[in-house]
This record gives sequence, structure tokens and C-alpha cells, in this order.
Amino acid sequence: MATQNLPPRDAIRRAAGELFVRDGYGATTVRAIAAAAGCDPALVIRHFGSKEGLFLAAVSVSGDLTGILTGPIESIGRELVRYVLDGAESPVAGVYRALLTASDRPEIKERLRASVHDVFVGPLAERIGGAYPELRARLAAAQFAGLINACWLVADPVLACAEREAVVALYGDAIQRLLTCEDPPTPGRPGDSNAGTGGPVG
Amino acid sequence: MATQNLPPRDAIRRAAGELFVRDGYGATTVRAIAAAAGCDPALVIRHFGSKEGLFLAAVSVSGDLTGILTGPIESIGRELVRYVLDGAESPVAGVYRALLTASDRPEIKERLRASVHDVFVGPLAERIGGAYPELRARLAAAQFAGLINACWLVADPVLACAEREAVVALYGDAIQRLLTCEDPPTPGRPGDSNAGTGGPVG
Repeated sequence: MATQNLPPRDAIRRAAGELFVRDGYGATTVRAIAAAAGCDPALVIRHFGSKEGLFLAAVSVSGDLTGILTGPIESIGRELVRYVLDGAESPVAGVYRALLTASDRPEIKERLRASVHDVFVGPLAERIGGAYPELRARLAAAQFAGLINACWLVADPVLACAEREAVVALYGDAIQRLLTCEDPPTPGRPGDSNAGTGGPVG
Repeated sequence: MATQNLPPRDAIRRAAGELFVRDGYGATTVRAIAAAAGCDPALVIRHFGSKEGLFLAAVSVSGDLTGILTGPIESIGRELVRYVLDGAESPVAGVYRALLTASDRPEIKERLRASVHDVFVGPLAERIGGAYPELRARLAAAQFAGLINACWLVADPVLACAEREAVVALYGDAIQRLLTCEDPPTPGRPGDSNAGTGGPVG
């Protein structure tokens, strides 16, 4: 981990980032982080206050999503699917798993929520025309997170064996529909006579 | 918790289920479960082997999804969204959060994977016509899990304030598209001249 030449605070943060991503939040102890950073556990607590505080300082979610979300809007859906399919072994996948498995802690849930907004929903909502832009960006983020769950967390064997471009086309176009749909769905149950209940969507 | 009159094994399992759902996997100790069940921690281990073994015996995911998945196929998408929007405070949501936050443990990841298949993908794939029925069922499950994440885990404030029927229509129809699409998307980037690469999807 080559942390010897770093100032103690940076050495601790780097060691923590590597251990959290590799082993998850629950299985990583302050003691193990201190050992990897070559310092005393008390120094870890002095610098970061708690294991949670250190986690928040050590991991971040951003990746190169920004490039996709600022690219041509008509291909964002399929590019997001390619990003997930290609990224299962990336450090970002490890950070995501660590964040998610630690998400029953309020501070970390708050970080997860802020990341979804800052990285994904905010930039995208500005680019979506039509009705409900922020809601549609948020629902596209939910679809994206669902695919991440399936590929990075559950490691679904059906998806792992599937024809790549079929997944890209099917799931990508389902995301895309929320971003650029020209024929937005109307509320109400299919076949309902009061299909307009709840106001127009579009 | 009224566990006094149950045989020890059942009392432990019931206490464990309540604590895991309420506090999550990480924060629930064998000691706390034993105290709630009114027995010695050693007895917990004797009956269930480990905290993981007890977790697997104590929680289950099924809910009343079966009713939706065997109902009219053309309304499954919107009914799944209603199920998630109405269920954020239900015990099923607690079970899901507990499973997910414990999912860095291999046995529990395996349980999560099996649940997705048994409860959702298997029954649904049999009902989907056209190409790639199992893949499409799996991708619909991923969309469903994404909405669960947003509503039950991240507790997204945009979604919490959104117009309910707009969410049902937008996200429901995005799920539905994978189940009954009559105009399946073709692989390849939009605008690609080789849009047929990867084989037909439809």
C-alpha cells in the first residue's frame, strides 16, 4: 500500500479506502486500518473521530459518469448500461458496495442520497425537457441503481451470460424512455375510464 | 415480544427477525437476540451455528408480490410501482434493508440472488412472450429493485414528494415496456449504420 511516505492523515485515508472497498464496511476495523497505515488506532480516531467519519472521508462516488451525463442526450440510456456492464470489477463498484452495505447508518445514507443528487439527478434534470424533469431524472437514477445492484451486488448469473447488446438495447431504451419520451404515459390504470386522474404527465 | 411461551428455537428466531428488521444486520448482536429471547447467547449459537445462520432462518422475502405477478400481465408494471410506493413502512421493507446491508456476506448474497429468481424472475419469465423472456424478466426485476432502493433504502425526498400517479405512470410503463413491448428495440447505438450488430432483439 506504499503509505510510509505519506503524512499520517493521508496514509490512514488511503489505507481505509482500500480496505473498505476490498472488504466492505462491516468487516473493516479501525485496528486493521491502523495496521495497514502503520500507526496506532488511537491516531485514526484522533484524525477522523470514528469509523463512520473515516469512511465518509475515504470513499467517493463520481467515476466518469459525468462524461456520459453531459454527452448526447439521445444515447445516455444505452451508455449508462454499457458503463454498468463494463464496471463490475472496477474500484467504483467496490465503493458502491461498501456504501450500500453501510447504508443503515444515517450519516452514510445521507451521503448516498447526496451522491445520487449531485452526480446524477442534478446535472441530468437540467437537460431534460417537458414535464417533471427532476422526477424523471430521479426515476432514471433509480433504474440505473437497479442495474448496478443486479450486476455489481447480486452479480446476477442470467445477466452475466446474457448477450451484451441485447441488455444494452432493452434496458438502455427503458432508461431512455424517461429522458426523451415523446409520447409520455398518462396516469391511471390501463383500461381505466378515468385515465386522466392525477393530472397530465407530459 | 411475547416470546416466553415459545420453545427456545422459535423464541430466538422470532426475536432475531424483529431485531434484524428494526436495527439491521450489522447492529444486531447475538447477545441482544439472546436477551430478547430470554436465553443464554450460547443457546443461540447451539441452535443456529452463527449470526449468519440465524439471519437466514429468521428473515424471508416474499410479501404479496405473487398476487401482482400472476395478475393481468398488462398492468404488472404499474402495480409493481404501487406496491413499492405503499410499502416503505412495511416489514418487507425492513427485511429488504437488512438483506441488502448484509449482502457483502457470501451466504446472504446467495439468498438474495435465490429470492430474486424464485419470487420474481421464475414466475414472470413463464408469462412473457417473444424473445429473451428470462432476460427481460430479470431486467424488470432490476428496475423493480432500483425503485425499492430509492424508496425504501435511500428514501429519496424527490420521490417522497412526487405526484403519486405520475410516478406510477412513468416508472410503471418503463417496467411494462420490458414485459410486453411490441416494438422491441434493436441493438446498436442510435444512429449506428450497423444497428443489427449483436443479433435481433424481438
